[in-house]
Amino acid sequence: MFEAKLQQAGTLKKILDAIKELLTEATFDCTDSGIQLQAMDNSHVSLVSLNLRADGFETYRCDRNVSMGMNLTSLGKILKCCSADDVVTMKAQDAADIVTFVFEASNQERVSDFDMKLMNLDQEHLGIPETDYACVVKMPSAEFARVIRDLSQFGESITFSCSKAGVKFSSTGDIGTGNVKVAQSSSVDSKDATTIELQEPVTLTFASRYLGLFAKASGLSERVQLSMSPEVPLVVEFKINDIGYVRYYLAPKIEDDDGN
Amino acid sequence: MFEAKLQQAGTLKKILDAIKELLTEATFDCTDSGIQLQAMDNSHVSLVSLNLRADGFETYRCDRNVSMGMNLTSLGKILKCCSADDVVTMKAQDAADIVTFVFEASNQERVSDFDMKLMNLDQEHLGIPETDYACVVKMPSAEFARVIRDLSQFGESITFSCSKAGVKFSSTGDIGTGNVKVAQSSSVDSKDATTIELQEPVTLTFASRYLGLFAKASGLSERVQLSMSPEVPLVVEFKINDIGYVRYYLAPKIEDDDGN
Amino acid sequence: MFEAKLQQAGTLKKILDAIKELLTEATFDCTDSGIQLQAMDNSHVSLVSLNLRADGFETYRCDRNVSMGMNLTSLGKILKCCSADDVVTMKAQDAADIVTFVFEASNQERVSDFDMKLMNLDQEHLGIPETDYACVVKMPSAEFARVIRDLSQFGESITFSCSKAGVKFSSTGDIGTGNVKVAQSSSVDSKDATTIELQEPVTLTFASRYLGLFAKASGLSERVQLSMSPEVPLVVEFKINDIGYVRYYLAPKIEDDDGN
Repeated sequence: MFEAKLQQAGTLKKILDAIKELLTEATFDCTDSGIQLQAMDNSHVSLVSLNLRADGFETYRCDRNVSMGMNLTSLGKILKCCSADDVVTMKAQDAADIVTFVFEASNQERVSDFDMKLMNLDQEHLGIPETDYACVVKMPSAEFARVIRDLSQFGESITFSCSKAGVKFSSTGDIGTGNVKVAQSSSVDSKDATTIELQEPVTLTFASRYLGLFAKASGLSERVQLSMSPEVPLVVEFKINDIGYVRYYLAPKIEDDDGN
Repeated sequence: MFEAKLQQAGTLKKILDAIKELLTEATFDCTDSGIQLQAMDNSHVSLVSLNLRADGFETYRCDRNVSMGMNLTSLGKILKCCSADDVVTMKAQDAADIVTFVFEASNQERVSDFDMKLMNLDQEHLGIPETDYACVVKMPSAEFARVIRDLSQFGESITFSCSKAGVKFSSTGDIGTGNVKVAQSSSVDSKDATTIELQEPVTLTFASRYLGLFAKASGLSERVQLSMSPEVPLVVEFKINDIGYVRYYLAPKIEDDDGN
Repeated sequence: MFEAKLQQAGTLKKILDAIKELLTEATFDCTDSGIQLQAMDNSHVSLVSLNLRADGFETYRCDRNVSMGMNLTSLGKILKCCSADDVVTMKAQDAADIVTFVFEASNQERVSDFDMKLMNLDQEHLGIPETDYACVVKMPSAEFARVIRDLSQFGESITFSCSKAGVKFSSTGDIGTGNVKVAQSSSVDSKDATTIELQEPVTLTFASRYLGLFAKASGLSERVQLSMSPEVPLVVEFKINDIGYVRYYLAPKIEDDDGN
């Protein structure tokens, strides 16, 4: 039997927003340590890794490991039926082909339950090596989302250039070139601060489209962390309040010899 | 000569919102007791009944009975031209083929008048028998609209099950099953209360699509009243502040012998 | 070298909103007295005239006259990248084929620059004779926009009838006729006042579509000025706070002998 209770159904809504444009279906692996999801996006370009720790839930019980394959469009319809501040409980019997979501309104006069059919999905678990990154940038997630949205208008790629002074995001296309420079903040304590831990300057180029999809997770956290090293996938991480994180991995574009 | 004046043009806008997706054209019957509209929806499945009492208007005069057939799309264009707090006057000469709407802004610097051509529409008046219902539910109209919207995502039908404890709304479809239980409120005085007057428990199933169209009337009133008896059409009633009501009638679905 | 700095990038955004549906491309003529744009709309029916005085900018320098032909869709993409309260600087070298926009966020932690390719556009400068108008109406621009939007639903033309008492806007079409009467205000000092300077009563008819496009400039100014004389183009003018104006010219429709 699996049963997990979360105080704020809104967290589930935001998690779905963070993955639903990358994945149409996904398997949530539930163990006694928590819930994990790991999957390549539909085009097999980027990797999504979601981790929700058991201790982050109000109550959590998982007698046997369960893998729940869900259609994310169906999940979206069910999550539309709850308010952000409903209490939500997810339940499944061992070896069940159904997961149940129970939503309780804060005034307790409305209780809804939704049964969703589960799917068997192929899964391949990818080992993600722990890496020491040459550069780690922490910045407001809204600022990150905005820079990506703005520059995506210009070109299919965005170049991240990190130095002690700050990060420069650049994109070039038919209509011209855009550069957005975000300076390292003088005060590092504010939640609006941009901070940079730098072993060496890094310049990497990524596909605008995927960066834009990662930025959909901005609702989950006020802060985003970008970890970069030469020739290694970028990691974009959003913490999920007290319970876990979602991370996206995206390989940099390799420039041709002639610089194109 | 017919002339009726209403302090708040917004009431007319909301009445139109409540019927315009069910009816493309409608005849407003004006007598010295008020204005009435009764019509089957475009697909001849549900019945709409609107009643505006003469004494609910600021001023009201109707020398001879007039039947004004209106195209509701045209009426919508005219009502877009007034503000919710404009004073509105409707006027027609006896046997006229035109109705005039006059809108006066509260600051009195803008006065607009719109002449709309009337239409001759076929009409059949249906006797609606007064019935004693087995179950009458009163609940917040926003809550009703929300339940219908949520469950309409799942299936083409929604089942209403009423008992002393509360009302359960259910729907089943390809992705699974949803149940929303609204409990009878302990305090019945609040405008957010759900109250149930029950002669006998009732379980009836209705087409989601029509329930969704009725719920468009939620803007008219904070409360909705659902009256149900076995094998008899559901009545969904929204009071219109001090002036009348709009009621919708919808026959329950008959289940096949095999339960489908 | 050309360089002009504006405290509020929002002003540029609103100017673009005021012209982008009339023009797809436009030439901004920069001289030491300021920036001017004059162009027939895409269908060669109306004329747009924009004037931004050098002294209205925070700093302004123009060593040699420059004509900058811009694609307004591209300009729109660039202006999407700034906040309304960013400081914006436009720069171009003499005889350059590129213009640079620099946006500085008020917290100074983000600086963006965008290079846009310029275009060579054919230009014909039209002499606009200074005229003494028979009637000049000043009214709130939001009210003007609203009247035009409302009446555009009815017919392709809107008739403006100006007298001492006020202005009547009228339109007739398939569904009927609409008249909106805006009275001259008793108090003329309020920014909501409608005032009329009248040499002689004027009645003129204009194409709804173009009036609607001019009304897009309402964001630029709380007030609009309509100048009319018989058989002469209407002038619709919106002041741009302390820096200039945008004016639209539209010839009245000529009625046929039989009144159609």
